[in-house]
Amino acid sequence: MSVLYDRVALIGLGLIAGSMAHAMRRAGLAGEIVGTARSAETRAIAEEIGLVDRVTETAAEAVEGADLIVLAVPVGAMAAVAEDIAPHLKPGATITDVGSVKAAVVDAVAPHVPDGVHFVPGHPLAGTEHSGPQSGFAELFDHRWTILVPLEGADTDAVARLRALWEGMGAFVDEMDMDRHDLVLAVTSHAPHLIAYTMVGVADDLRRVTDSEVVKYSAAGFRDFTRIAASDPTMWRDVFLTNKEATLEILGRFTEELFALQRAIRTGDGDQLFDYFTRTREIRRGIIEAGQDTDAPNFGRAKGG
Amino acid sequence: MSVLYDRVALIGLGLIAGSMAHAMRRAGLAGEIVGTARSAETRAIAEEIGLVDRVTETAAEAVEGADLIVLAVPVGAMAAVAEDIAPHLKPGATITDVGSVKAAVVDAVAPHVPDGVHFVPGHPLAGTEHSGPQSGFAELFDHRWTILVPLEGADTDAVARLRALWEGMGAFVDEMDMDRHDLVLAVTSHAPHLIAYTMVGVADDLRRVTDSEVVKYSAAGFRDFTRIAASDPTMWRDVFLTNKEATLEILGRFTEELFALQRAIRTGDGDQLFDYFTRTREIRRGIIEAGQDTDAPNFGRAKGG
Repeated sequence: MSVLYDRVALIGLGLIAGSMAHAMRRAGLAGEIVGTARSAETRAIAEEIGLVDRVTETAAEAVEGADLIVLAVPVGAMAAVAEDIAPHLKPGATITDVGSVKAAVVDAVAPHVPDGVHFVPGHPLAGTEHSGPQSGFAELFDHRWTILVPLEGADTDAVARLRALWEGMGAFVDEMDMDRHDLVLAVTSHAPHLIAYTMVGVADDLRRVTDSEVVKYSAAGFRDFTRIAASDPTMWRDVFLTNKEATLEILGRFTEELFALQRAIRTGDGDQLFDYFTRTREIRRGIIEAGQDTDAPNFGRAKGG
Repeated sequence: MSVLYDRVALIGLGLIAGSMAHAMRRAGLAGEIVGTARSAETRAIAEEIGLVDRVTETAAEAVEGADLIVLAVPVGAMAAVAEDIAPHLKPGATITDVGSVKAAVVDAVAPHVPDGVHFVPGHPLAGTEHSGPQSGFAELFDHRWTILVPLEGADTDAVARLRALWEGMGAFVDEMDMDRHDLVLAVTSHAPHLIAYTMVGVADDLRRVTDSEVVKYSAAGFRDFTRIAASDPTMWRDVFLTNKEATLEILGRFTEELFALQRAIRTGDGDQLFDYFTRTREIRRGIIEAGQDTDAPNFGRAKGG
């Protein structure tokens, strides 16, 4: 692969930005990778592990002369960062972001983007429950989808180049408008996360079932919830506050269905339960066929344990 | 390891019984393993893949002369099987089961157990979303917990021998009374399963978000729910119908908490969300420390994908 951007500036150095640094290096996609983070500790770790070529103290310094700027901070911090860097952007540069919601990011960032700079919002659908500069790895985006959300009248060359970058980092790329993105993600990510957080919170509250029992016997299903519910609290607070409408709509639908199944349990309607559980099995098959998971029989279990 | 039972009869040949056959062979724990299943197709597959030493057409034949009888059928079928085999049991034999609920199994089975036969209910907390005789594998129980639920006045030798069998198959073993088992499992398994089934059903219903989008973008969280929601429908119908009270109690708590978090989203109370999400992160740490999951950064992703 050849270099797509002579200089890339990563604003924020968490799991996603860190994985981007690894993935860009793996494929030689960037001439120089500059990075910055608000926390001095994060910057020090990034420096120590050589995560990027150069760590700067401020975002303004980082974007100086950069051809691509990646906003990889929590959604709630995007507006302030955009305002901060605006005067320092190189004409013709592209700004993108990796936020989990898109309409709110566009609202926060677009007003600050100067003429002659291209803003192409994006969202890589990949992650783990880990955060911080040491949590990144080059394979995070391999065979996972990244959604680009070009705004009306977007520069086609700028969009094409950003798409090539994501493909070079191993991702599949799709384009979508921002409202559809936010609805699709409310279903596939935001509502499931809130539900997982809630169930783990309930288990924690139930003093009748001690922590140690919940932990010891977690392999029976609960464990998958705890993995989801261990994700970064700041990021997820911002997701829910900024994709409020779609998330609440899906949660409303969820509660309605849950009540119907609870009633089936209470009244002993085994047929309704059986039919429902049979239908949900089909979706799983689709995910495995689409290559987004594996059906290996001991999947999800630690090697040798 | 030495032989603990000269003849073991497996009634039902699904994931758990199949894995027991593999695990018993791995450690040489049984002299002969006999198996049966209600479905002729299941019996034919078991025969073809050599899952057990001998396949019989009926449960009555299978238990003839057996020292250990394992009831590995859905909870709703336990009473009929117990009644069926009762006249054919060898004096001094032990009956156990692998059902996911315990009070209902005791109610269903205990009345049929003849004098001189030991009934020691059990529940291995292990599984995958696969079912059927070809889904078993020897490592399923390794480093996972099996809970034994000895009844009042249980024969201590019979309990100790069954414990040794599970340990020989790789499991950790705990003892617990049946009501506590059913409550703990409602938290760690039954409620999470119903919630996952519900969320997957909601996604399936939302025609505005097409199946293909839900499937493509599932890696963002939803995927973990689909794995849980792909579990055997018959087994899970019976679990909910027979552990009704505890499951409904936990679901009631869950709904209460979910409403509180929904309100926090609606009113924009970021602090409440942040605090909640921080607390749930701790539980995850406990599970990793207890060896019930791994924190490898690319955990849960297919090799090379």
